[in-house]
Amino acid sequence: MSSRILIIGAGRSSSALIKYALDNSERLGWNVTVADADPAAAASKVDGHSRGTTAWLDVTKTNDRRELIGRSDIVVSLLPAHLHIEVAQDCIRLKKHLVTASYVSQELYRLGDEARDRELIFMGEMGLDPGIDHMSAMQRINTIREKGGTVTAFRSFTGGLISPESNDNPWGYKFTWNPRNVVLAGQGTAQYLENGKLKYLPYYRLFNNTWNVELDGIGKFEAYANRDSLLYREQYGLTDIPTILRGTLRYPGFCAAWNALVRIGMTDGDFPILDSSQITYHELMEALAPSGPGSVKDRIAQMLKLDPNGEVMDRLVWLGLFRKKRIKLKGATPALILENLLLDRWKLQADDKDLIVMQHQIDYEINGRTHRDVSNLMMKGENARDTAMSRLVGLPLGIFVRLMTEGKIQTTGVHIPTMREVYEPVLEEMEDYGLEFTHHTIDL
Amino acid sequence: MSSRILIIGAGRSSSALIKYALDNSERLGWNVTVADADPAAAASKVDGHSRGTTAWLDVTKTNDRRELIGRSDIVVSLLPAHLHIEVAQDCIRLKKHLVTASYVSQELYRLGDEARDRELIFMGEMGLDPGIDHMSAMQRINTIREKGGTVTAFRSFTGGLISPESNDNPWGYKFTWNPRNVVLAGQGTAQYLENGKLKYLPYYRLFNNTWNVELDGIGKFEAYANRDSLLYREQYGLTDIPTILRGTLRYPGFCAAWNALVRIGMTDGDFPILDSSQITYHELMEALAPSGPGSVKDRIAQMLKLDPNGEVMDRLVWLGLFRKKRIKLKGATPALILENLLLDRWKLQADDKDLIVMQHQIDYEINGRTHRDVSNLMMKGENARDTAMSRLVGLPLGIFVRLMTEGKIQTTGVHIPTMREVYEPVLEEMEDYGLEFTHHTIDL
Repeated sequence: MSSRILIIGAGRSSSALIKYALDNSERLGWNVTVADADPAAAASKVDGHSRGTTAWLDVTKTNDRRELIGRSDIVVSLLPAHLHIEVAQDCIRLKKHLVTASYVSQELYRLGDEARDRELIFMGEMGLDPGIDHMSAMQRINTIREKGGTVTAFRSFTGGLISPESNDNPWGYKFTWNPRNVVLAGQGTAQYLENGKLKYLPYYRLFNNTWNVELDGIGKFEAYANRDSLLYREQYGLTDIPTILRGTLRYPGFCAAWNALVRIGMTDGDFPILDSSQITYHELMEALAPSGPGSVKDRIAQMLKLDPNGEVMDRLVWLGLFRKKRIKLKGATPALILENLLLDRWKLQADDKDLIVMQHQIDYEINGRTHRDVSNLMMKGENARDTAMSRLVGLPLGIFVRLMTEGKIQTTGVHIPTMREVYEPVLEEMEDYGLEFTHHTIDL
Repeated sequence: MSSRILIIGAGRSSSALIKYALDNSERLGWNVTVADADPAAAASKVDGHSRGTTAWLDVTKTNDRRELIGRSDIVVSLLPAHLHIEVAQDCIRLKKHLVTASYVSQELYRLGDEARDRELIFMGEMGLDPGIDHMSAMQRINTIREKGGTVTAFRSFTGGLISPESNDNPWGYKFTWNPRNVVLAGQGTAQYLENGKLKYLPYYRLFNNTWNVELDGIGKFEAYANRDSLLYREQYGLTDIPTILRGTLRYPGFCAAWNALVRIGMTDGDFPILDSSQITYHELMEALAPSGPGSVKDRIAQMLKLDPNGEVMDRLVWLGLFRKKRIKLKGATPALILENLLLDRWKLQADDKDLIVMQHQIDYEINGRTHRDVSNLMMKGENARDTAMSRLVGLPLGIFVRLMTEGKIQTTGVHIPTMREVYEPVLEEMEDYGLEFTHHTIDL
């Protein structure tokens, strides 16, 4: 039986998914349509494959969108998260399955009954983080349960970084993912549980409150708390767990320097700066610094209670924040000015290899003793086109669609991949693509 | 000639406007319709007046809205600012004039040509702040210009406070205005000019960076910077002015205490706290405080580098933030939790008198010498129904509509009240309602 797969979005994170879909299309009987607002991006990825076609799609055009969805069996949406809901409503209306790598919103969850009534599956959080983190964590949690253990603490950390051999900047970071999301990351109040106590971290303390995480043979990292640690207690079957924390990994020193940007005001995306097109980065820093004698760099350092020649200030200088160069952006927010600067300074070069790291720390009690089950994942990309990020976001989507077209998914409704019928075959096939978790246990 | 006046919104700030419209309806030949989603609110304000009618209106219902607008000549919208644009589009379509007390958005300004083509006037910022501040400032600026002076600095401060005789709480503040706007005030980056230098204040330094303002015979106040000081340079004819600052007045001590709430994280409105319905205020503070020995109050004080028994902490304690009382709000953001608490603690009592204060400081050069022209406004309300806030927001709207129906306004397009044909007659009639600016000049 042949299946019509519609992939909406041909951007950075779609390469591995499109490749998987086309490489397996003959074997699986798939016809693959890649739709994007930029037809050249879609065409370059389909590259004339006999079972691939491209479509031009402005996703805000309801009729065009519905026509494309109507001519498919399964829709994979790589759109920005806020655009999924309309695609999902179309899928309900036109009776199509939907798969995404984004966080499932409350709005999307509310379509659960309708999806179930129509025997549809809407699978979200089916990428890397969220995605592989859920699947690999559930596999470990269920392994521990099967041997009679009780989970008492769950900590999970993921980072999309740059591989040491390509790490040639003091931040240890380049963009392999949506730059805007990186700049605005963490705004809101992060929430987690520690020894039975709720802990809330507002944005202005988030990057000042980090955890040290070491991955054997890879190195030391630091983690800041994700906003959503409490969200998965039920879905992981850990409703009454006293400690649960999800975090994002960075190389040591990143968080202190990012915290300086936050405190200076450079991550504020609420309102535009009226004169932004007329000033230089140096004048921007002058306008944000307290008045007084001394250089603007010294006054910023003093305001932040930092050594003017220390590592954090060095990172800010490296970004070019104190250069007398015009910003050239009209009516831009500080966050947009920063994003624009980082797009240049943190650009992944053609031969750069990215690095994905993940660690789960799962504490459990068995026979009156407490152990920690530690899982580590490390994957390097090949270059700027074939990134580990693209593989680990795209392949789970592709593999899940394979399971669907092979009739191996029984569940209907809106879900994230915490059920065994999903995570076991997905993680197993991911091993063919180099996914490898190492595990060890520590006695606590 | 009779005029049909439609007032949309019968909330807190509409009382004085509706009273003005009905009191003058016979003389001016007005028929007044008050529309609101709450018909009882509209009915209580129209109170059976022979020239007044009420209408039930859910403003999101396009057809209902257009039908009401179609049956009027002039629309006065007291809706929340983001709802004005649809009303404005209806007014373009149906050829009706529009008056509001809200900030004019870029979106609304873009309707200017269409409004002008149809000979319509859309007047925004026609309340107190924005409104009376623009009008009284323009009057002084033009007086200075007429005697040959050159304005070198413009500073303007407004506060909606509580009168000293009704001030029975340590914050010196009660709600006479939209509570949500008070809680979220200042988020974004405040922008002003000081001696030719741009100054930007991000939210987290805003309430820590205040100006002392004294009004003769009334007392001392402190001001924090408004977001928008740079916005009015052109409209005030002060394009190249080296110093321009607009600020909000509070009683001394308010800003330091509010800054504590900001730094604790209580004004964060981005994302809900998942467990908010299950916890007490005390537990909320515990979750936001650093771990360690000592009471949660002491740890919060330590985190903020404050005296645990000082004035700021006393204000937080008075709010009830450390009480073991259930919050009882499901999925609420910290900002919503705070708003809910303040709605109770800062409630205007039936006999409370509010207080409006405003000061302009206009520096100018004439014959080689520099002077400062200082204008002060103070107005007290009568009680919780007849507030100075309601009068000073509503009467300028009413008087401006009178000028329109008397054919005294020639301008068309989208405007704010900076032109003489508007501010002179409005300010003059406002004197009949007790508006009185005092003026004095200081040699600098």
